[in-house]
Amino acid sequence: MAAPGDEEGAEGPRCHRRPTAMLDVPFLPFCAFLGTLGLLCVAMVGAWCQHWRGGFSLDGSSRTFNWHPVLMVTGLVVLYGAAALVYRIPNTWSGPKLPWKVLHGSLALGAFVLSVLGLAAVFRFHNSQGTPNMYSLHSWMGLATVLLFSCQWAAGFGAFLLPWAPAWLRALYKPIHVFFGSSILMLSVASCVSGINEKLFFSLKNGTTAYKLLPAEAVFANTLGLLILIFGVLVVGALARPSWKRPDSDSPDSRQ
Amino acid sequence: MAAPGDEEGAEGPRCHRRPTAMLDVPFLPFCAFLGTLGLLCVAMVGAWCQHWRGGFSLDGSSRTFNWHPVLMVTGLVVLYGAAALVYRIPNTWSGPKLPWKVLHGSLALGAFVLSVLGLAAVFRFHNSQGTPNMYSLHSWMGLATVLLFSCQWAAGFGAFLLPWAPAWLRALYKPIHVFFGSSILMLSVASCVSGINEKLFFSLKNGTTAYKLLPAEAVFANTLGLLILIFGVLVVGALARPSWKRPDSDSPDSRQ
Repeated sequence: MAAPGDEEGAEGPRCHRRPTAMLDVPFLPFCAFLGTLGLLCVAMVGAWCQHWRGGFSLDGSSRTFNWHPVLMVTGLVVLYGAAALVYRIPNTWSGPKLPWKVLHGSLALGAFVLSVLGLAAVFRFHNSQGTPNMYSLHSWMGLATVLLFSCQWAAGFGAFLLPWAPAWLRALYKPIHVFFGSSILMLSVASCVSGINEKLFFSLKNGTTAYKLLPAEAVFANTLGLLILIFGVLVVGALARPSWKRPDSDSPDSRQ
Repeated sequence: MAAPGDEEGAEGPRCHRRPTAMLDVPFLPFCAFLGTLGLLCVAMVGAWCQHWRGGFSLDGSSRTFNWHPVLMVTGLVVLYGAAALVYRIPNTWSGPKLPWKVLHGSLALGAFVLSVLGLAAVFRFHNSQGTPNMYSLHSWMGLATVLLFSCQWAAGFGAFLLPWAPAWLRALYKPIHVFFGSSILMLSVASCVSGINEKLFFSLKNGTTAYKLLPAEAVFANTLGLLILIFGVLVVGALARPSWKRPDSDSPDSRQ
């Protein structure tokens, strides 16, 4: 259920107040909350792999695999979310824009590099164990997400950071870039939660620690999955919130 | 990466055209495409359960479980998506609004009833097999989604359909309802894809049909998962698209 009628009866006169103005969440405290939530997700995925899954190494064992969830959650969800929200910071709405563009592109590049390293970790683990790659829905979604992200970054760089990109191209591409910005985050959150679910079924299949008996690890990692979902939903919601968009972004309530 | 700068250089003058106007997708053909995609998802989840998973029954066997994916995809994704988009139909923007409110609420109620039946199917299957309920991340997400949906429907009914609800309450609650409208759809898509992933690992674990050998069923159901993701992303994108919102909805570009 979304976008019901506005605040009148069936046929009464329309009220033209901005409904969102009545629920004015300030952006910066929201960002602080979101940052805390993101750091909590990173800490929890690290703690899960360290405490219950044997820690980290580069030897091709399951300890190499453990880099995969940590790098994906850190890069493709938390750092990506930070990159996506740069243009919602009110300070970016005035003065030179190039520094903010560079910050947005750099955070996104950092997120992309971590994601590629995260993919490398799982491919190395599979290859050293003789497990096929790319058969599960989780792997299809995850790879599609990273491939879309690479196109998004390259196209964003070409259109918005190269000074010779024509204005018509920027104007044409911008709504596409914004749409895919939120979409890729939704895909990456769906990939992460399906991956956590899958990993728990793989890891907790024997004896007393069976997933279905809900041991402490399962409660911990399920909670992590829900927190990642909440983080993703809040970032996508923040990106869509009209009053947090740049005044000249998508609606004419601009400083014309 | 979302919401980059608009169409000028680093410090050039701002251009105040609506960027989305340069990429004008008409709503109704988009809706026809989305409807086709939704029906395809429903047909595919039905075909998967019928062709590979043994069909449907009410006897508590895995054929009872098969109602679960069909009802969840049909109710919590496709019918829910249709309900969410009602207020994006331009015809709803003028004339009496009550019929559209009733349509929105009825479609959402239909989606909710199918979701509850879908939950009943999996609980009945688990109980008759002696399998615990509610241990996986998928089940936590799915139940949270349906619980949120029930609150969303009840609160939407109370605030927007009961004629004595005060205007200030409607104005206060509307952005919350809109936010949760998109959020619940994201949660339900994440629940669906994690459920399909999990079901394939359960079902395809023996011999020649192992999931990792990517049999036809795995390709089919993975494709279904990706189509559900695309459907969800397109609905959430359509809900967020400024030019498809009611003119008096969230921005002052209204018929004041």
